[in-house]
Amino acid sequence: MKRIIEQSFAVPYTYPVIFSQNIFDEGDDTLAGLLDNGKGGKAYFVIDSGVAVAHPSLLEQIKEYADAHAAQFKLCAEPLIVPGGEASKNDPQYYEKIVEATHLYGIDRHSYIVAIGGGAVLDMVGFAAAISHRGIRLIRIPTTVLSQNDSAVGVKNGINSFGKKNYLGTFAPPFAVLNDFNFLQTLDERDWRSGISEAIKVALIKDLDFFEWIEDHAISLANREMEPMQELIVRCAQMHLDHIAGKDPFEMGSSRPLDFGHWAAHKMEHLSGYEIRHGEAVAMGIALDSTYSYLKGMISEEELQRIVSVISRLGFHLYNEVLSGDMLLKGLEEFREHLGGELTIMLLSKLGLGKEVHEMDQTLIVAAVEKLKAFQADRLITN
Amino acid sequence: MKRIIEQSFAVPYTYPVIFSQNIFDEGDDTLAGLLDNGKGGKAYFVIDSGVAVAHPSLLEQIKEYADAHAAQFKLCAEPLIVPGGEASKNDPQYYEKIVEATHLYGIDRHSYIVAIGGGAVLDMVGFAAAISHRGIRLIRIPTTVLSQNDSAVGVKNGINSFGKKNYLGTFAPPFAVLNDFNFLQTLDERDWRSGISEAIKVALIKDLDFFEWIEDHAISLANREMEPMQELIVRCAQMHLDHIAGKDPFEMGSSRPLDFGHWAAHKMEHLSGYEIRHGEAVAMGIALDSTYSYLKGMISEEELQRIVSVISRLGFHLYNEVLSGDMLLKGLEEFREHLGGELTIMLLSKLGLGKEVHEMDQTLIVAAVEKLKAFQADRLITN
Repeated sequence: MKRIIEQSFAVPYTYPVIFSQNIFDEGDDTLAGLLDNGKGGKAYFVIDSGVAVAHPSLLEQIKEYADAHAAQFKLCAEPLIVPGGEASKNDPQYYEKIVEATHLYGIDRHSYIVAIGGGAVLDMVGFAAAISHRGIRLIRIPTTVLSQNDSAVGVKNGINSFGKKNYLGTFAPPFAVLNDFNFLQTLDERDWRSGISEAIKVALIKDLDFFEWIEDHAISLANREMEPMQELIVRCAQMHLDHIAGKDPFEMGSSRPLDFGHWAAHKMEHLSGYEIRHGEAVAMGIALDSTYSYLKGMISEEELQRIVSVISRLGFHLYNEVLSGDMLLKGLEEFREHLGGELTIMLLSKLGLGKEVHEMDQTLIVAAVEKLKAFQADRLITN
Repeated sequence: MKRIIEQSFAVPYTYPVIFSQNIFDEGDDTLAGLLDNGKGGKAYFVIDSGVAVAHPSLLEQIKEYADAHAAQFKLCAEPLIVPGGEASKNDPQYYEKIVEATHLYGIDRHSYIVAIGGGAVLDMVGFAAAISHRGIRLIRIPTTVLSQNDSAVGVKNGINSFGKKNYLGTFAPPFAVLNDFNFLQTLDERDWRSGISEAIKVALIKDLDFFEWIEDHAISLANREMEPMQELIVRCAQMHLDHIAGKDPFEMGSSRPLDFGHWAAHKMEHLSGYEIRHGEAVAMGIALDSTYSYLKGMISEEELQRIVSVISRLGFHLYNEVLSGDMLLKGLEEFREHLGGELTIMLLSKLGLGKEVHEMDQTLIVAAVEKLKAFQADRLITN
């Protein structure tokens, strides 16, 4: 006897991605509304240490906000402060602390964990929330450009293990994403800029209009004007959300996320001991793969100049010494392994249109690195 | 400025649940076909110690099978043997070993973990597979009645933590489920019987026909006849699969799994220090909630007699001393907390039709326990 039942179903997900300001003002009902599960939702806050330092009154504000909305939700414990950046993903004690808190404070599947911080902290908290009780509701409050326009609107979480980024993690859509633009005001120069590279990335492979908009606003973005930054974030987040919803949100097939410029970026971050931030590495990775696309005859010299120019005007470096040497090529091999054997790299066939290839010419990669080095030297002279 | 993007998508899942025999015969292509990812899939086997002991040639068979199908897949390491039962879920070292193996042997998202064993081992291996690389393909080969007809065909995994069952886990559909009925032949008496209680459960709340079929086959099932057992398993698995596919597979709303008889069963298992097996506890839990339904005037005495009789004829006990005392009522309170505040208990409104209630009368529960005790005494006299 042999019988086969083909099981088949679809799991629907919906979540709001909200762009707002002053979300902890007592009169603002947005967050309280999200936390209201009809029977006084329990909420547990986890806060990025960088945010806590930059906003010393935040903890007090959260408590006052909870007091003012006591009918809708209650804090089930003191907020937990965790280190910002990769530190929170490298040391398992932080996610373990959150898991333990869910046990200690009786945080169940109808309760909420509210994570406030940059992408790394949100990733780590998301992992703890996803595996406790098979998934506690997670509200992400991203505080950086990079997390507001990219990582925090998506469906992934993770921590680092065995020296590998995001080795442990799941696909788990958030309950809601609540962006407060006010958090951007206290970002340092580098973090303000870093997040813009994900917008350049998505514009270059998908949307010429958006790329030209970034060109037009490069100077005002570099000058920290808030209005164009808000527009950039909403537009980039929308494209990211569309990409996720469009096809294979949990990446079960061979479809890849929007990772133009990322194979080199991952390696550069690692080689620099994370001195180079993700967005900075992505900017150089974009410059590298654009230059490679040019050397391969896929885009024109003028197109390449426009790309390099906008990256440069935004204040990014085009070259870092970790790009020289064999380690970068090793990164390509690691990326191939990560993909499960077959290499897939996104390049450009024109501005606003990406093209996937399945092999890379190592000699041309080295030539592209040399060209970037020269661009960077020119730029230093010009400035 | 306040803007909201409503993100919305559905994630489709399909997986085959295969019922077969002799799956490791060299001439059988089923498993090799599942493991063939087009480029020689890597497979890592994890085996329940109970299965390894009962089938001493299994490891050799697996190696010979891999040799015979080398074009389709390869073993990337020696199979790992882990303790059977809850021990594998209580001690984190076992799931950690599997996670570490994925790192050591380069097991990626296009590779496979093959878990062979009872429900507890499959739960534990499933958790490790689900969080490594955000999900490695998992092939479940369940070896008990209970896992073949119920737990292994579903979408959950988990390990125990903080003394709570399945505290850590995710919803993660398997890549495939491959049932080999041969494994049932070596089950001990209690494990053979245990799994039948999940079939009684689903029949009582959903399918009078199936309940009557079980009544007709109770003696041959108790006598370990393989043919009716196969039919029972396929029928029960199908109902379980339909329930999952039907509505809210990942239990994001308030919908409950098919847990008739389970609130008391969970507590009884725990109170007995897991001396009482899950299926045995479920049989008593069904008897208890059926008796309660009778005392509440929801079903007739004749219906109750039929239920008690079929459970008894299958060889289950109807009563255990852990049912006496206050601890059982404490279990009801814990179940309420587990559900997030509102109690939902499945009872019966007639044979083949469940009915959910939101409160339980404690005096009637105690009376139902007394009645079960009397049933059990009668049964001992009758035998």
